[in-house]
Amino acid sequence: MKKKLNIALMGSGFMGKAHSYAWTLVNKFFDVDYEPVLKVNFGTDEELTREFAEKWGWEEISTNWEEVINRDDIDIVDIVTPTYIHKDMAVAAAKAGKHIFCEKPCAVTYDQTKEMAEAADKAGVVNYLNHNYRRVPAIAFAKQMIDEGKLGTIYHWRGAYLQDWVMDPNFPLTWHFKKDLAGGGPLFDLSSHAIDLARYLIGEVKAVTAVNKTFIEERPLPGQRAATFTAGGEVNSEKGKVEVEDASFMIAEFENGALGSFEASRFAAGRKNYNTFEVYGSKGALTFNFERMNELQYLNLEDPADEQGYKTILVTNMTHPYAGAWWAAGHVIGYENTFVHAMADFLKAVEKNETIEPNFHDGEKIIRTLEAAALSSEEKRRVEVSEIK
Amino acid sequence: MKKKLNIALMGSGFMGKAHSYAWTLVNKFFDVDYEPVLKVNFGTDEELTREFAEKWGWEEISTNWEEVINRDDIDIVDIVTPTYIHKDMAVAAAKAGKHIFCEKPCAVTYDQTKEMAEAADKAGVVNYLNHNYRRVPAIAFAKQMIDEGKLGTIYHWRGAYLQDWVMDPNFPLTWHFKKDLAGGGPLFDLSSHAIDLARYLIGEVKAVTAVNKTFIEERPLPGQRAATFTAGGEVNSEKGKVEVEDASFMIAEFENGALGSFEASRFAAGRKNYNTFEVYGSKGALTFNFERMNELQYLNLEDPADEQGYKTILVTNMTHPYAGAWWAAGHVIGYENTFVHAMADFLKAVEKNETIEPNFHDGEKIIRTLEAAALSSEEKRRVEVSEIK
Amino acid sequence: MKKKLNIALMGSGFMGKAHSYAWTLVNKFFDVDYEPVLKVNFGTDEELTREFAEKWGWEEISTNWEEVINRDDIDIVDIVTPTYIHKDMAVAAAKAGKHIFCEKPCAVTYDQTKEMAEAADKAGVVNYLNHNYRRVPAIAFAKQMIDEGKLGTIYHWRGAYLQDWVMDPNFPLTWHFKKDLAGGGPLFDLSSHAIDLARYLIGEVKAVTAVNKTFIEERPLPGQRAATFTAGGEVNSEKGKVEVEDASFMIAEFENGALGSFEASRFAAGRKNYNTFEVYGSKGALTFNFERMNELQYLNLEDPADEQGYKTILVTNMTHPYAGAWWAAGHVIGYENTFVHAMADFLKAVEKNETIEPNFHDGEKIIRTLEAAALSSEEKRRVEVSEIK
Amino acid sequence: MKKKLNIALMGSGFMGKAHSYAWTLVNKFFDVDYEPVLKVNFGTDEELTREFAEKWGWEEISTNWEEVINRDDIDIVDIVTPTYIHKDMAVAAAKAGKHIFCEKPCAVTYDQTKEMAEAADKAGVVNYLNHNYRRVPAIAFAKQMIDEGKLGTIYHWRGAYLQDWVMDPNFPLTWHFKKDLAGGGPLFDLSSHAIDLARYLIGEVKAVTAVNKTFIEERPLPGQRAATFTAGGEVNSEKGKVEVEDASFMIAEFENGALGSFEASRFAAGRKNYNTFEVYGSKGALTFNFERMNELQYLNLEDPADEQGYKTILVTNMTHPYAGAWWAAGHVIGYENTFVHAMADFLKAVEKNETIEPNFHDGEKIIRTLEAAALSSEEKRRVEVSEIK
Repeated sequence: MKKKLNIALMGSGFMGKAHSYAWTLVNKFFDVDYEPVLKVNFGTDEELTREFAEKWGWEEISTNWEEVINRDDIDIVDIVTPTYIHKDMAVAAAKAGKHIFCEKPCAVTYDQTKEMAEAADKAGVVNYLNHNYRRVPAIAFAKQMIDEGKLGTIYHWRGAYLQDWVMDPNFPLTWHFKKDLAGGGPLFDLSSHAIDLARYLIGEVKAVTAVNKTFIEERPLPGQRAATFTAGGEVNSEKGKVEVEDASFMIAEFENGALGSFEASRFAAGRKNYNTFEVYGSKGALTFNFERMNELQYLNLEDPADEQGYKTILVTNMTHPYAGAWWAAGHVIGYENTFVHAMADFLKAVEKNETIEPNFHDGEKIIRTLEAAALSSEEKRRVEVSEIK
Repeated sequence: MKKKLNIALMGSGFMGKAHSYAWTLVNKFFDVDYEPVLKVNFGTDEELTREFAEKWGWEEISTNWEEVINRDDIDIVDIVTPTYIHKDMAVAAAKAGKHIFCEKPCAVTYDQTKEMAEAADKAGVVNYLNHNYRRVPAIAFAKQMIDEGKLGTIYHWRGAYLQDWVMDPNFPLTWHFKKDLAGGGPLFDLSSHAIDLARYLIGEVKAVTAVNKTFIEERPLPGQRAATFTAGGEVNSEKGKVEVEDASFMIAEFENGALGSFEASRFAAGRKNYNTFEVYGSKGALTFNFERMNELQYLNLEDPADEQGYKTILVTNMTHPYAGAWWAAGHVIGYENTFVHAMADFLKAVEKNETIEPNFHDGEKIIRTLEAAALSSEEKRRVEVSEIK
Repeated sequence: MKKKLNIALMGSGFMGKAHSYAWTLVNKFFDVDYEPVLKVNFGTDEELTREFAEKWGWEEISTNWEEVINRDDIDIVDIVTPTYIHKDMAVAAAKAGKHIFCEKPCAVTYDQTKEMAEAADKAGVVNYLNHNYRRVPAIAFAKQMIDEGKLGTIYHWRGAYLQDWVMDPNFPLTWHFKKDLAGGGPLFDLSSHAIDLARYLIGEVKAVTAVNKTFIEERPLPGQRAATFTAGGEVNSEKGKVEVEDASFMIAEFENGALGSFEASRFAAGRKNYNTFEVYGSKGALTFNFERMNELQYLNLEDPADEQGYKTILVTNMTHPYAGAWWAAGHVIGYENTFVHAMADFLKAVEKNETIEPNFHDGEKIIRTLEAAALSSEEKRRVEVSEIK
Repeated sequence: MKKKLNIALMGSGFMGKAHSYAWTLVNKFFDVDYEPVLKVNFGTDEELTREFAEKWGWEEISTNWEEVINRDDIDIVDIVTPTYIHKDMAVAAAKAGKHIFCEKPCAVTYDQTKEMAEAADKAGVVNYLNHNYRRVPAIAFAKQMIDEGKLGTIYHWRGAYLQDWVMDPNFPLTWHFKKDLAGGGPLFDLSSHAIDLARYLIGEVKAVTAVNKTFIEERPLPGQRAATFTAGGEVNSEKGKVEVEDASFMIAEFENGALGSFEASRFAAGRKNYNTFEVYGSKGALTFNFERMNELQYLNLEDPADEQGYKTILVTNMTHPYAGAWWAAGHVIGYENTFVHAMADFLKAVEKNETIEPNFHDGEKIIRTLEAAALSSEEKRRVEVSEIK
């Protein structure tokens, strides 16, 4: 009989749905000792929260987040709210001794991430920051190959994360455009993922040189029906100021000597969730594009010269990372499955009370790099990440 | 409060897992009036069945299939066994007044499919044959485009379904190689899917000209641990005769005048689940490859001549078929999601007591075409599908 | 000082241009002992021929082909006329002791090809049939890999050669649609190339099963200005009967046991010169598409299972076949360069008085296979190539 | 009868071969009033020069460049030497009243380019700087589409030019690694091309922020046999210092408000001549990769939302720029053909005594931008191009 763990889901929306899906399934596909119980769902709008909770089988709902976090029967606090409130919730959860599963980006400032990491360390709770792309099988396999030395010395990282969902100048001024709510624009939303991947795969960033750019300075205020990532929602006739960048291009110097780039934009026509990278090393190279998430491209410089070329590996073999839990070679999986992978690893960490990565300390490093990039763009100069205190 | 429908799952294995997954999730992603209850799982091996049922939450198990099908509390019989027993189970289910969700291929002979269709018609039960690829969003979207006339008159279908899982001559002689258990080799397993898609997208096949080929005539008998689609399993030192083809190439003449091909093989190195087709018409063309299932290629002959080219449409917009139920543009989905789509449509059909496609009548037409192909290969001549009685 | 060889070019048009280009350049890029002299150009229309000859530097022109072929100062007869006259010219050239460079398809009937081969053999002249795709570096490299055993036992050939230039029902009834002038439609024009490649790469075809199809039965007669491959030309208000197929789909059984297909069509929207093949063997696979002629895809089954995938080899290394004569790795070449390769090899064969491939004996085998396919389509049955006498 | 123009080719090697090829062919494929005469070839090594000249049909050779340039019978000076001597030759040619066709990069410093442009302007000679990629049909077509407004307001340029030919630490210290001979590393060699394309397609660069990086600080001195772009050549046991960067990553702010990047490296495993760009605008996007030079990818935001996707346009129609001179749709061309296009346009400019682009003024702007990038990397700050005087 599996031990039960009670989950409190803080928020709903797009990420609430993805997390609910994954809590429902994790035990079916992975052998974990714990069985998650969908205990309570916090939301600010009681009606919407009730509807969501019923659909997904959350036993209870609440509109008081502090109360939820402090309930004795809650084991895990799962945070899927807008970014600005991550810190308050995470610190409260840590103080209450709860394990924490938190969406990215970690927080809106480096200071907040430090508070979160300190609180979690002090409380000794397992904390996980959901940069879910690490758990795409193709990326986990890339990590494995790099760790085995198959790329040799790394020379380059070329990362881009491109979308086009706000190109319409009448897309409303949602929270995503407010600095205090979102931390930044694509720099925070998209490059946070990309920097997490680069750190995971090749190492820490030492210095950044960045240029941010806002193409649309004002946008209509949102109307009654909230706009979301997937729909523009209603707009108001009044306009407000956009506070974040629409695009952020960054050159990164890594501690290991590699030269890299991170290019993030919400103004790249035709790119929907184009999270892509290329890694070049002395022995080979890898490339990835999330829109073809089951594929990894690999160039092996040790192949005979005339037979070299980028190989498209379909990362769906039963022996590829995570893939054995699913279907069969050639039976591709999707975005959602990465959440199941994350929860399986998280539950194993909880079981053994072990550290899991990425966590709030990774969040610290990522947000610190983003702040360095913002400063670089502002001061028009190269900034060492260590300058950010 | 949703009405509950009790499901009996006949079999487990690869497809049992996919179906259990989908019955678990269908209500979360689609608005259906019914709530499926995972009532009972039939299996021949009691221990394995118990283990499977516990994992997936099937309330009960049974090793007596006739008893299960005739239980008063069962509403839906879901058949995922090897092909040879489909007919017996389906006919029994129809007689017992149960709605039927049945895996493909429909049966091992055309005669069996006729029996199945007659029994279901007579009983007036909803019956669905799970050629799940119809419900890949990209393919449903292809159907929509063709129905809107975007391809004009259809000239060609070029279909291939290629795999490589039995290339090793020591892969054991599992049921897949026995004619009476499987009906045929890739002709039945793979071309059945391809023919279903071609019929769905462009119309009925009138005549076929086919050549089947067996490369490995004998294989080691299976050992104790059963081999499956995903693993070769143990082998025995003794060998037995392969009774089905390893590859089947077919030319098809369609009733609407189109000329097409269906090429199926289990000896195509590097192809894992390479279910691909090209459709050429007077106004444009479409191509699809399941290994990139979120993409559809479209060529529009009405674009200015110098701007024509195959477009890669990422079929993940909220307005694409089925896609709105899931995540967001660019957030790709996987093989498994097609089962959820099938069950959502099936439950809606049950609700309204309506016909759903494909069903046993489609099975009849598909298996009839496959038998025509087998005859063509045997007699080395073109065979009209109507010759098969 | 290089020995000079006088060339007589029989015809002009599209192929005349390609050949003139290649005779001009062959000495610049390849070390051959002979220097071709552009001596005389035969054409039926004096004015057009003069214009063409002046542009390309042919020293003289003539409108009498027999006279040209029998000139004492001519060493090489290069035939680029419509197919129906190949035989007469080649036989005359052989009788006159000239070496022969001849465009494909070899002739309009198997009988004609036999005459050509016999005449050339008897005369002991070097004869070359320009199935130029053999000399695409990527294809020559594929040959090298197959000969080295890198694909093991060959199981499948999947070939397609697709175009769309006559899809417009008002494209005029040029010689391409006349059986006695062209031999056939895409079966002769396109599958002749594909069969040459298959024979070159994997071996002889033993039996064929084919279906030909004509979509547009009548077309307007051509007007004054001739239509060509690259332009429809003027049309007349009167219509005439199309005598050849618009598409030809064929299943081929090879002598070595491989099962293959050849699909040729002029009704494949968006395909311009889509000459593509896939070869599957017990140790690996190769795929090629002429529209990306500098690339060869290679799957090596001996790579570690989790690192297998189709590799895109850019066949432009200085060590790849023919490529060393040109530019540098990554500096792609084009269609025209294959003609230079052919002429370099032809001149070397002339120098050593050696056989070169493909030649009229290859033409025999190819046209015999095409006639077998035409018969198969007509009689709706499998035809052994040896049935064609 | 065409007017003859005498050409003096200054240098040979890789580019001498490409130019000789193109001078030989330009009249065959394009209607130009002038006929180039391959008059004299200058080279420092008499024997090698003689051999080269004989192969290509240069009438005379010389080892005295000033003499050659000042010959009365020379009409056009074509410069293909290493970069450092471009300025002296171009200035001398201008003073002598010769038209100039000059390889890129323009010169090793901004100052030199100013001298070149001034001298050419003063002399009133036609001068052309051979950034040949502008004349790839796909890129000329991209220009046409952008000029027609098909991309709307441009938001982004993402350019990369990646190679791997010097990754071996024992590749010798050729002139490419010497600052005074080459101007810089990939910044000069590769980004000069990329910046030319960006200026051509979207406009002038206003400010740059760049980081250069050298991975291999010392290399063996070259031995007797010179190393070239296509071969490493012999090496010496002694080592010398590398003076240029191995990689250069740059962020560019354009005058029109677009945000872009230029990433150049000689350490990108598997990339041979990977000159690629993406342009994103408010109405659509284009992408290009030279290794597939016949293709242009186009995304049209005005297509119905569900039918949007990147289209692969094969830019080989008779109506595409330059393509009509060659073969037929689908008959791809290569690297070399771009030189013929350049010469055709150059000869037309000479005929009309008109300005052609790019010319030395473009060279000025490009090298100025490169110097700004070098300064940015050195001073670790954003540099406005106008800062470079």
